[in-house]
Amino acid sequence: MKRIAAAILLLASCCYAQTKDGFVPASTNVWAAEYPRVDASGKAQFRIKAPNATAVKLNFWSNPKLDMVKGADGYWTVTTPPLVPGFHYYNFVVDGVDVNDAGSHAFFGGGRDASGIEIPEAGATYYLPQNVPHGAVRDIWYFSKITGSWRHAVVYLPPGYDTQTKMRYPVLYLQHGAGEDETGWTRQGHANFILDNLIASGSAKPMILVMAYGYARRAGQVDPDLTGKPFGPPEMMKAMQGMFQAFEDDLIQVLIPYIDANFRTIADRDHRGMAGLSMGGMQTFQITFDHLNLFSYIGGFSGAGGMMMMRSGQKLDLKTAFNGALADPTAFAKKVHLLWIGVGTAEPPQMLAGITRLHDAFTEAGVKHIFYQSPGTSHEWQTWRRDLKDFAPRLFQTGSQPIVAAR
Amino acid sequence: MKRIAAAILLLASCCYAQTKDGFVPASTNVWAAEYPRVDASGKAQFRIKAPNATAVKLNFWSNPKLDMVKGADGYWTVTTPPLVPGFHYYNFVVDGVDVNDAGSHAFFGGGRDASGIEIPEAGATYYLPQNVPHGAVRDIWYFSKITGSWRHAVVYLPPGYDTQTKMRYPVLYLQHGAGEDETGWTRQGHANFILDNLIASGSAKPMILVMAYGYARRAGQVDPDLTGKPFGPPEMMKAMQGMFQAFEDDLIQVLIPYIDANFRTIADRDHRGMAGLSMGGMQTFQITFDHLNLFSYIGGFSGAGGMMMMRSGQKLDLKTAFNGALADPTAFAKKVHLLWIGVGTAEPPQMLAGITRLHDAFTEAGVKHIFYQSPGTSHEWQTWRRDLKDFAPRLFQTGSQPIVAAR
Repeated sequence: MKRIAAAILLLASCCYAQTKDGFVPASTNVWAAEYPRVDASGKAQFRIKAPNATAVKLNFWSNPKLDMVKGADGYWTVTTPPLVPGFHYYNFVVDGVDVNDAGSHAFFGGGRDASGIEIPEAGATYYLPQNVPHGAVRDIWYFSKITGSWRHAVVYLPPGYDTQTKMRYPVLYLQHGAGEDETGWTRQGHANFILDNLIASGSAKPMILVMAYGYARRAGQVDPDLTGKPFGPPEMMKAMQGMFQAFEDDLIQVLIPYIDANFRTIADRDHRGMAGLSMGGMQTFQITFDHLNLFSYIGGFSGAGGMMMMRSGQKLDLKTAFNGALADPTAFAKKVHLLWIGVGTAEPPQMLAGITRLHDAFTEAGVKHIFYQSPGTSHEWQTWRRDLKDFAPRLFQTGSQPIVAAR
Repeated sequence: MKRIAAAILLLASCCYAQTKDGFVPASTNVWAAEYPRVDASGKAQFRIKAPNATAVKLNFWSNPKLDMVKGADGYWTVTTPPLVPGFHYYNFVVDGVDVNDAGSHAFFGGGRDASGIEIPEAGATYYLPQNVPHGAVRDIWYFSKITGSWRHAVVYLPPGYDTQTKMRYPVLYLQHGAGEDETGWTRQGHANFILDNLIASGSAKPMILVMAYGYARRAGQVDPDLTGKPFGPPEMMKAMQGMFQAFEDDLIQVLIPYIDANFRTIADRDHRGMAGLSMGGMQTFQITFDHLNLFSYIGGFSGAGGMMMMRSGQKLDLKTAFNGALADPTAFAKKVHLLWIGVGTAEPPQMLAGITRLHDAFTEAGVKHIFYQSPGTSHEWQTWRRDLKDFAPRLFQTGSQPIVAAR
């Protein structure tokens, strides 16, 4: 009862006005939370009450931790330097323990529901809700014979899907990164708003997005007990390949047939694409190259080349890489309408070098592709929002079938 | 880069097998998290690493905190007694600071994204996904002239909605509690699965659910600065009433017209109901009694009577309560097809007494209603799941219009 009353009190007692110093509550905050706050320069202020703690830090995952300072009221605070615009995961570290910010919504990243903050980008509205027709974001559950379990995916249906009931649409499968899940592209990435805005301006064709859960374990599979055993890159690669292969089988054998059976898709390779970020980019390359009979648009956002691309100095031989899918660039270009790779210019050096090396290898071998660099952004959602903004308008503009066909 | 590799490592290294002591990872866990774990008796085991902490507790919100015990490995652990089945919010308290469990998904409650754990109820499948047709859960965004902002709501469309494009459906507006949000009824409550199962068995009519965000602040409203001012029950009540009124205006003037314009509803009072839990029950009574021209089915789950019902000893005069809506029970019964109230038998005494007193007052005054008591459950989601399971089959069985009409 005390908690109910406290919750109502909390809800009713909010004061939201902009402060004199120009800081306002972040758009990612929960109802009535005054902190964290951001200003027009991108600075952010954080606060947590921990009167008994001896050391509290703010941890933006991609940056050094910032020390917070304790006030007489038991609150620890810090004001950051101006941050790169976009979405950032973070947490507090209270005496060595990771703590979420109760003032921020949680977003799935790093394998858990973590705090996140949105830093506005001046003038950028392409990923914000606008007064344009909105597509529908849907949760779907399907039973997978591969995993022996119910699986959840998120589907975006373009504006007009409900009312234009004779129309059929192309489909882009769009994957999250490692440690994220199928909710990332809408919650962190705003993929739905990006598509709404691109479709409204005529820049992109109306299309369906399917955002799947990128982890899978085969039904009945018992993972080896690794307790006390070595788990270095070889074991990790093997375990990951098993997970990737199960995901590939689920996507190809269960999810795509489910989507084509339950939504008004144009179910052919000319109207099916796949893209993903980071781990999702690796999965995209593996799956699409294994199934060029099913996909003709391919995008790798900050993660196209697979793990081996991240090892510096390794020469990429396109005659043998990707099971030889790119060995004949002319034949590949006839099949694949778009091969697109992107990276942020401020990504970690290995990632930047790896993707750039992939671009160089493509260029050297004559593999037709688009290489996009997001200025000043790292391995983060602002890079991937920009990727989608550049990638989506290039989709489904060619091909032997009409883009939107009557049933 | 280190974090990316660590995330992939985490994903690939999971070991999921049931332990010898019969504990398995909870269904609410994130991918590959071994803790928390539950056994068939409802006991749960929790774990958190906090090597430098001096005291760690497990906090189930409705129960006394449990002390956790530190092991030599820096992990604090505890095994609970058998818990009431259903969904429970919780957090750790590490040296006085509330900490989420990285092993559990977060669910919005208590005004923040909090950890939650699902304790299975033996034999209860009515709120679990089954091999039956599934409705669609959709996110919608609408711009509200009342709040001057984009608002998010969750909509459930019954199985067949996509393909039976001439069919129209009744609508139940279904509200969350204080400190929760519009995602609660699907994420914690499994309302979609409850309806899927009820519809599949023929127990409930196919219907649309609309789950709105129950907080609202008028456009341009600047809340009074309450710093250092008294904020007792009178001020709290006033602030809450302002918020409730703004929500009522948003629901009546914006959301209902939006739903009726964008979905195939039967847009009359015979085919529109509203229910809510806790604070949502109070809002339901206020809104439906203010607008009996719009609603004919009314449900209050653990919160029907408003704040005054929770004050013990207060006599409820139905001649004047609820602005006199119930003053003439015969006239009321002619208008309202269903008045339904429920409470868990293990709810906090004030809540249990308040709802029971409402039931008594209804009975005494001859107000036709259903009174449901959930055995052994408190102010928690298992109560509200059962409420919905009892409530939904009673909806839209009467009325002057056909239930599902051709357009």
